[in-house]
Amino acid sequence: MSDATRSEHDLIGDREVPVDAYWGVHTLRALENFPITGIPISVSPYLVEALASVKQAAATANNELGLLDDERFAAIRGACEEIRSGELADEFVVDVIQGGAGTSTNMNANEVIANRALELMGHAKGDYAFIHPNEHVNLSQSTNDVYPTAVKIAIILATHDLLAAMQVLEDSFARKADEFHDVLKMGRTQLQDAVPMTLGQEFRTYSLMIGEDRARLSEAVLLLHEINLGATAIGTMLNAPAGYVPSACGHLAAITGLPLETAVDLIEATQDCGAFVQLSGTLKRVAVKLSKICNDLRLLSSGPRAGFNEINLPAVQAGSSIMPGKVNPVIPEVVNQVAFQIIGHDMTVTMAAEAGQLQLNAFEPVICYSLSAGISRLEQAVLTLAHRCVDGITANVELLRSEVENSIGLVTALNPYIGYAAATEVAKEALATGRGVAELVLERGLLPREQLEAILRPEVLANLAKRPEPRTGPVPVAPA
Amino acid sequence: MSDATRSEHDLIGDREVPVDAYWGVHTLRALENFPITGIPISVSPYLVEALASVKQAAATANNELGLLDDERFAAIRGACEEIRSGELADEFVVDVIQGGAGTSTNMNANEVIANRALELMGHAKGDYAFIHPNEHVNLSQSTNDVYPTAVKIAIILATHDLLAAMQVLEDSFARKADEFHDVLKMGRTQLQDAVPMTLGQEFRTYSLMIGEDRARLSEAVLLLHEINLGATAIGTMLNAPAGYVPSACGHLAAITGLPLETAVDLIEATQDCGAFVQLSGTLKRVAVKLSKICNDLRLLSSGPRAGFNEINLPAVQAGSSIMPGKVNPVIPEVVNQVAFQIIGHDMTVTMAAEAGQLQLNAFEPVICYSLSAGISRLEQAVLTLAHRCVDGITANVELLRSEVENSIGLVTALNPYIGYAAATEVAKEALATGRGVAELVLERGLLPREQLEAILRPEVLANLAKRPEPRTGPVPVAPA
Amino acid sequence: MSDATRSEHDLIGDREVPVDAYWGVHTLRALENFPITGIPISVSPYLVEALASVKQAAATANNELGLLDDERFAAIRGACEEIRSGELADEFVVDVIQGGAGTSTNMNANEVIANRALELMGHAKGDYAFIHPNEHVNLSQSTNDVYPTAVKIAIILATHDLLAAMQVLEDSFARKADEFHDVLKMGRTQLQDAVPMTLGQEFRTYSLMIGEDRARLSEAVLLLHEINLGATAIGTMLNAPAGYVPSACGHLAAITGLPLETAVDLIEATQDCGAFVQLSGTLKRVAVKLSKICNDLRLLSSGPRAGFNEINLPAVQAGSSIMPGKVNPVIPEVVNQVAFQIIGHDMTVTMAAEAGQLQLNAFEPVICYSLSAGISRLEQAVLTLAHRCVDGITANVELLRSEVENSIGLVTALNPYIGYAAATEVAKEALATGRGVAELVLERGLLPREQLEAILRPEVLANLAKRPEPRTGPVPVAPA
Amino acid sequence: MSDATRSEHDLIGDREVPVDAYWGVHTLRALENFPITGIPISVSPYLVEALASVKQAAATANNELGLLDDERFAAIRGACEEIRSGELADEFVVDVIQGGAGTSTNMNANEVIANRALELMGHAKGDYAFIHPNEHVNLSQSTNDVYPTAVKIAIILATHDLLAAMQVLEDSFARKADEFHDVLKMGRTQLQDAVPMTLGQEFRTYSLMIGEDRARLSEAVLLLHEINLGATAIGTMLNAPAGYVPSACGHLAAITGLPLETAVDLIEATQDCGAFVQLSGTLKRVAVKLSKICNDLRLLSSGPRAGFNEINLPAVQAGSSIMPGKVNPVIPEVVNQVAFQIIGHDMTVTMAAEAGQLQLNAFEPVICYSLSAGISRLEQAVLTLAHRCVDGITANVELLRSEVENSIGLVTALNPYIGYAAATEVAKEALATGRGVAELVLERGLLPREQLEAILRPEVLANLAKRPEPRTGPVPVAPA
Repeated sequence: MSDATRSEHDLIGDREVPVDAYWGVHTLRALENFPITGIPISVSPYLVEALASVKQAAATANNELGLLDDERFAAIRGACEEIRSGELADEFVVDVIQGGAGTSTNMNANEVIANRALELMGHAKGDYAFIHPNEHVNLSQSTNDVYPTAVKIAIILATHDLLAAMQVLEDSFARKADEFHDVLKMGRTQLQDAVPMTLGQEFRTYSLMIGEDRARLSEAVLLLHEINLGATAIGTMLNAPAGYVPSACGHLAAITGLPLETAVDLIEATQDCGAFVQLSGTLKRVAVKLSKICNDLRLLSSGPRAGFNEINLPAVQAGSSIMPGKVNPVIPEVVNQVAFQIIGHDMTVTMAAEAGQLQLNAFEPVICYSLSAGISRLEQAVLTLAHRCVDGITANVELLRSEVENSIGLVTALNPYIGYAAATEVAKEALATGRGVAELVLERGLLPREQLEAILRPEVLANLAKRPEPRTGPVPVAPA
Repeated sequence: MSDATRSEHDLIGDREVPVDAYWGVHTLRALENFPITGIPISVSPYLVEALASVKQAAATANNELGLLDDERFAAIRGACEEIRSGELADEFVVDVIQGGAGTSTNMNANEVIANRALELMGHAKGDYAFIHPNEHVNLSQSTNDVYPTAVKIAIILATHDLLAAMQVLEDSFARKADEFHDVLKMGRTQLQDAVPMTLGQEFRTYSLMIGEDRARLSEAVLLLHEINLGATAIGTMLNAPAGYVPSACGHLAAITGLPLETAVDLIEATQDCGAFVQLSGTLKRVAVKLSKICNDLRLLSSGPRAGFNEINLPAVQAGSSIMPGKVNPVIPEVVNQVAFQIIGHDMTVTMAAEAGQLQLNAFEPVICYSLSAGISRLEQAVLTLAHRCVDGITANVELLRSEVENSIGLVTALNPYIGYAAATEVAKEALATGRGVAELVLERGLLPREQLEAILRPEVLANLAKRPEPRTGPVPVAPA
Repeated sequence: MSDATRSEHDLIGDREVPVDAYWGVHTLRALENFPITGIPISVSPYLVEALASVKQAAATANNELGLLDDERFAAIRGACEEIRSGELADEFVVDVIQGGAGTSTNMNANEVIANRALELMGHAKGDYAFIHPNEHVNLSQSTNDVYPTAVKIAIILATHDLLAAMQVLEDSFARKADEFHDVLKMGRTQLQDAVPMTLGQEFRTYSLMIGEDRARLSEAVLLLHEINLGATAIGTMLNAPAGYVPSACGHLAAITGLPLETAVDLIEATQDCGAFVQLSGTLKRVAVKLSKICNDLRLLSSGPRAGFNEINLPAVQAGSSIMPGKVNPVIPEVVNQVAFQIIGHDMTVTMAAEAGQLQLNAFEPVICYSLSAGISRLEQAVLTLAHRCVDGITANVELLRSEVENSIGLVTALNPYIGYAAATEVAKEALATGRGVAELVLERGLLPREQLEAILRPEVLANLAKRPEPRTGPVPVAPA
Repeated sequence: MSDATRSEHDLIGDREVPVDAYWGVHTLRALENFPITGIPISVSPYLVEALASVKQAAATANNELGLLDDERFAAIRGACEEIRSGELADEFVVDVIQGGAGTSTNMNANEVIANRALELMGHAKGDYAFIHPNEHVNLSQSTNDVYPTAVKIAIILATHDLLAAMQVLEDSFARKADEFHDVLKMGRTQLQDAVPMTLGQEFRTYSLMIGEDRARLSEAVLLLHEINLGATAIGTMLNAPAGYVPSACGHLAAITGLPLETAVDLIEATQDCGAFVQLSGTLKRVAVKLSKICNDLRLLSSGPRAGFNEINLPAVQAGSSIMPGKVNPVIPEVVNQVAFQIIGHDMTVTMAAEAGQLQLNAFEPVICYSLSAGISRLEQAVLTLAHRCVDGITANVELLRSEVENSIGLVTALNPYIGYAAATEVAKEALATGRGVAELVLERGLLPREQLEAILRPEVLANLAKRPEPRTGPVPVAPA
């Protein structure tokens, strides 16, 4: 880049900006004011795309309403379409964490679009008399309607990616559920052996959980389709011409292909962060479930010799720099960590939303970044979990079955036949002596062998097969 | 109460319990094991009622299926109905925070119901050969289906109360919005004077926010209507007779009057806490909005002489032990604090949900308590805010109007007529000199007086009246 | 209680209060304004005691400085001493969650003390011309110095109880560490078998963790000894006579026996909640460690047949209403839940502290309650864990030893002798074939038997015994 | 970079890595396994430096103990010194969020150092027979001691930067406190006018708060100086030769210049995350205070005409894309947002620490990243606040003084002379009529003019000047 500069002017005074930069003095101020994370807003391509979409929709409405002449409109539209196709992304340079309620992001977009439009019209960058960042590109707009609208679109698009990734994981677990359909194992409650089930049932649960979370997330993202474009500064539509609001919203829906709608009350919509809080809370729900599932996977694959050792996660890298041959559950572990981040982000979003005052929430940039980064990481984590872990899981079928056969938990199934009190006595003796439940029941003459075996068929216990006989009549009760 | 005792027996051994107690040895163990908060589960009458409803529904199903004879059924039903009508609440004594995934709560209910049923049959308390807490009252059940089902019912009922309270507050704000319909004031963004609006618009926003939160909360509570009664230990329905699941669910729906449904997959439903996390996240959203509104109310009523002083909150108590005549915004302050508690509770619920392992979440008691206590406090806070604060708010109309008239923010409305750059110059001079915007515009000859006055009519700016004339033609742009 | 009432007057007007009540009109207003939790401030006896201590110290200073005559002083002191000894606790009735920055708590104390002092002087309750809640009991004070000072004292006292409880738990773990000193077992990283250690080492860690947390908590509580008594409304000492600040602090230190000190800057001290945030953060640290330890205990005791089954927690109650003989880790589970509450409370404290504005934090009541309730529950949880769980833990010594002997992790110890690459090959074959590490090393001729056995002595591996020989010379490296 | 590759081998099999890459197959696996954030570990230069320091210290100890020959040692040392001086940073490519407890970070370092050392010895990259990443660079080490040790050093260094930045801010506030020493203003409690103070006192408070937080942070960072280098896999020092632990720690202290010490119990130290939780909690405290201060700055500068308007923040950028001349408090706003991030990060750290199991916490990478990113952002935020905001703040002295003179809060100072009850009556009338307190006191004949004026001198009220006369004798009390 050349060292040459051009001079620009704002409320504070004159400043030199690099002559090649599409951004201008407002962006320069923001670069100086917010040296916080070093992460530019271009880290979210969807946000850059959404900003260009909003600007294009506004320009179209302004042109239709006679406020923006055809020539300038064509140039602005051209610039927006280039940006939407991925060009000029490097010019979106302001920090993701910024004061000013998104003004710097909006001005960064206004300046890049104005300068690119100027070029398309044959003017030099900075010749704002022809196309001005505020007067033309930002015409009929305010940061306070442009920014949240763009943020919502960006997050909708990112969430769609996440939903698709979750579908992949849901399917992955479902395939494993089918594969392990008849693999008997002990179910556990409170980490203690409980009663039999199948590994297929266990994995089906994970698939269903992801599916339910997809449904909740799909609902939450719908709330983001309600936008406040045309609200301008505080929702009174000041400076937005009559007809602008429906026109701009309609064009934006067409440009993005999303069923966007104007909020019923624009003053409320301008200050409200409820939709972001709702989405963040739902992402937290997804994180909680994913983390729970990963905890289970790590537990079920613990071992290989001094652990549960029920399933084997695929080895994707050497586990240890010192312990040869060790394979660790690194994929679930990384998913757990992403989940912890999502939960932390939700706290950030919560505090930022609560801190809104009067007609605006000035803290939307950190809400935007927390959600965007979180959704992106969650998508990556979910895909990684499916492809690099779940798809390759195998079961230690023999070990699992032997656990069922040795289990004291089988005694639970005898309650209806011998009563809770007698069953308790059998369980206590089994635990104390290491002997089997069936053996003890027979020894005590509590049930005939044939009936006992029918009751204790593991397939029956796991609800894979029908019970041998309907039980009738009152429960036997031992004297207390 | 007499010092006399009766002897009871459990897995651990024999213990004496007070002869008058309806609870028994399992409850005694829990009292000794969990001396945590000193708050008994009876703190939530809805939970006690819900436990009795579940037990009655189960007994009805068991009787229908021939597992429970008519005499015992009649006695158990009688005991449950007494409890549902509010009797014996003092017998639900185990601590709200307890290990065992709710087993102690379930056994407390089983014991109280068994002993009351024994009395109704003419037997002494403790004569469990006639009616046994496990064999009869808990028949076809497990803590792992009874407890979450009862918790869900209790929380549904409490949430209905909260929703009704929110409606009261929504209406209260709406009445104020009507009352303040034409009270002009300055809107603010980032705490800086922005552009005009009305106090009615400001209060309408609060009403709408509460309304939206009601809608979200109504959706979230629907998820709790999916129950796992009949799942027994881990969801395989072990020991639940054929036909029990639909029968028990149907009876429970009839008894409670709630449209309860059996979950599609009982194994998933038994371990999943997603519905609780969702509800908690939605309560957090409600708390965030309420806290934001209360922050605003405190800010708008700051003063009386060195603050915003725009509205007056009703004086409900002397504000200070040292500063005579001081009146503080104590009602919004208490609501803020309840909001902070709700947000803290959400963190507790999140961690408890994440900590579930394999086929069960052992930490549902703290989830239940966090939600129940939070919902109840939120209900109280919301009603208090409506009745003791919002209903009595008055506006300082003259001061509000004078702020608009003196405002520099009026200049924003001139953008379309004189351009952003010229408007900026006017604003800078107004700020530096303390002079008025209109005066400066006229002095600079930027607009004729008549047009200027038409543009700057506050009613127009606040979107209460139509704009004087449609603006057409391109925007004037000063040289950059 | 009689239905009779007496009339009292405040800023708002006249009200009837029960004639027998020691509290008065200000308390009555608070009861009406804050019907939030139903939990009165008397739930924390230490807070009631601390309020009386502060009032007594202030009265003593006022008397010394000639502002309070001997007769009134004697009566006020008498009332305070009665309250400090536990009397009149039922008169402290305002809700723990209240607006007004603690004014209602302070006025509740002022009124109870005034009325009891009136009785001691032979006057009727309500004869405030003789002793007035504001003029005499609150003399030279403001809620803004009295309340935080009392809260700090209450929390210091409660924390001392918690520290003592933590010492009990630390000792309990230490005794188990001694008992299990030579019990060999496999250590685990990332839930995978790693290298040998002893159960004593594992329990020693828990003891040390609790000890370190005690040290951190002891440091954090020191910060609470810095008080702002005498600051009055905002820290400018307005209305506190010369000499009052050191005198009141000195008397308070003497009355409580605590080394209290006046803050260096009273304006800063009056608005700052840093010490509460620090303490809350440290309690969260304690909770995190306790929860981790309880997670470990539940994991190590999982089984009995399909789990780790390394240790046995004492059975303290029947584990299940449906599964006979099941014993669950109910004590660690309840501790986990208390930990989740503490972490939630920390979030509440964080938000409340952040919400302070200008010269005061109005949200100290929820900070006080969150800390007090949390500390009390943590104390109970810690004692319960020690007495009802840790003290009774036993080890499955044979199983633990056999895990070591069968372990593939032993191969790690061979790195220095055969290199990481060769060791990896041995590990892979052991895992694939189920054969032992030593057997494979010998078969491959990697080490002579005698040296191998010396290296693999478990006591050596667990660092219980010296290594057989110092290793020297370069590491063998296989071709990459 | 060339397309050429070299072949490398690990536990999973053979893979091609770019021939120019200093990293190898383990890093390649990590790149594939953890495509989470796109942020490489080199984002924290201190972490890269710390890894090289640890490796250099270990190599030095190994060389001293005869385990590493001089030639290899020289090459490894050379590579480490290059990295410590900032070279090869681009080779540290693994994602900041990774499974495996830091193994990938450790192996990335091992591979880069090995390959650079190979080059220094005249060998080609990948010729691991001469210097092997595991056998030589990782000699006597495990990820489980190397990684937390390096993380601690990196965080110590970053915290030192933060502490220096906080000193800058503390000084900045202190200079303003001096500048505003005699600027009288109204103090406020609960946002209501309270009693007089000075703006200097208000800013002194901010300086003191930052100072206290510096002190607490300095204490917290000390805990990180306790390291577990030499603990190897789980703390039993397996494979670390006798003498290694003190030697490696000593060399590391010398290389880093930090007073590092070996933990007393290495097993405890290897699994414990207490020091990270403590630091995170203290950072949260810093964030809470900073956020509170920024809230105050935004409130005090609200206006310019319809707000508090007490102080002016320097204009650092145009405030609005639509409202000309508007200047917003963008610097405090960005600091608020960083504070919300820190608080969110603390939640992430809390959950990650709680999730540690048995002998290791596998989630240290997310702890490391949350702390590192948070500290860095906080440092930037603090410096920005000092330089771009606080340094340029000015006061509206006349307005501030007039608020004091018109205040009703002055009446508080009359309590000792006319009693709380009479003062309350005066305050009520002043509020109702808009008249002045002094005027009403004189009209009611409550005090002679001369005494009244002496009492109400603002300098006296703000504690800037001595009280005119000592007050003696009992307080006047009006009949209740």
